Amino acid sequence: MPKVSEDHLAARRRQILDGARRCFAEFGYDKATVRRLEESIGLSRGAIFHHFRDKDSLFFELAREDAERMAEVASREGLIQVMRDMLAAPEQFDWLATRLEISRKLRTDQAFHRGWAERSTELVNATSERLRQQREAGRLREDVPGEVLQTYLDLVLDGLITRLASGDDPAQLGAVLDLVERSVRQS
Amino acid sequence: MPKVSEDHLAARRRQILDGARRCFAEFGYDKATVRRLEESIGLSRGAIFHHFRDKDSLFFELAREDAERMAEVASREGLIQVMRDMLAAPEQFDWLATRLEISRKLRTDQAFHRGWAERSTELVNATSERLRQQREAGRLREDVPGEVLQTYLDLVLDGLITRLASGDDPAQLGAVLDLVERSVRQS
Repeated sequence: MPKVSEDHLAARRRQILDGARRCFAEFGYDKATVRRLEESIGLSRGAIFHHFRDKDSLFFELAREDAERMAEVASREGLIQVMRDMLAAPEQFDWLATRLEISRKLRTDQAFHRGWAERSTELVNATSERLRQQREAGRLREDVPGEVLQTYLDLVLDGLITRLASGDDPAQLGAVLDLVERSVRQS
Repeated sequence: MPKVSEDHLAARRRQILDGARRCFAEFGYDKATVRRLEESIGLSRGAIFHHFRDKDSLFFELAREDAERMAEVASREGLIQVMRDMLAAPEQFDWLATRLEISRKLRTDQAFHRGWAERSTELVNATSERLRQQREAGRLREDVPGEVLQTYLDLVLDGLITRLASGDDPAQLGAVLDLVERSVRQS
């Protein structure tokens, strides 16, 4: 192996992740084969899997990047703002659809479930911390336990992704988020 | 073709649909190949596709049966009761997962979208009629248009299916449905 600079390594990783995201978005999780990943990324499988162990490692790293970005918004403005951002980014709907395609695998493949859950920790923590703060500030309804509110928001997020991935009108979904927002607030 | 009785025809259709449902549940929409359908159903492709034009026709008929059953509950007890019934039937989670796997196809394949939407009409109508009655009886919140409430409930249904198909705890999801119920009610 020739020595390469840190910058070069980071650029190569970026190239791989961006290409992989496009590939998963276009073909879905299952049909993003190694051959298609090579084509989308523009590198051989040898080069790709020198940086990431396998297809799942690539997929998990993309999920981790999403969770990091969403956690940043969630901790400042809450999970509902994360969802509003989704409505405003239709170019992401193809990629979001992959989150649905792995549900069966999440339920039946323990190692995959563990890998996925690890990458979502940051978002889970940010949401739960934000809910705690909102509750202390007296902005949340008090007749429902915090963990139920969190599961509710997670469920709404999944439902939103399903509707967007299935082709629903984002404007109508925005009105639904207004209702969701009121339903977790102190009335 | 030999002449067959109506009863025999109905029994044959039932055999095909039950086998197809098991096959889709086990392998998912994409991986339920014709060969696998033959094995699960116990008939040749010739016999199967004498009764149903193709794989999508089979899938749509199963969706129509679901919608019919759900519409029956929805018109008497509402869509939230339909969801509570789902929580109580874990043996259905595998089949429910197929509803997520087709989201990409729903968005990108117009004919498929049309076929699917036609089969769901009965449930949509039952839910909207039930919402109208509840509103007239003064049981629904009045600050949100009926169609937003309907989209909200549809979104919650999809979110619930995603969480169930991904392996979430049904008990926790039951508490979430209590919150959903309160959030559409007159307070």
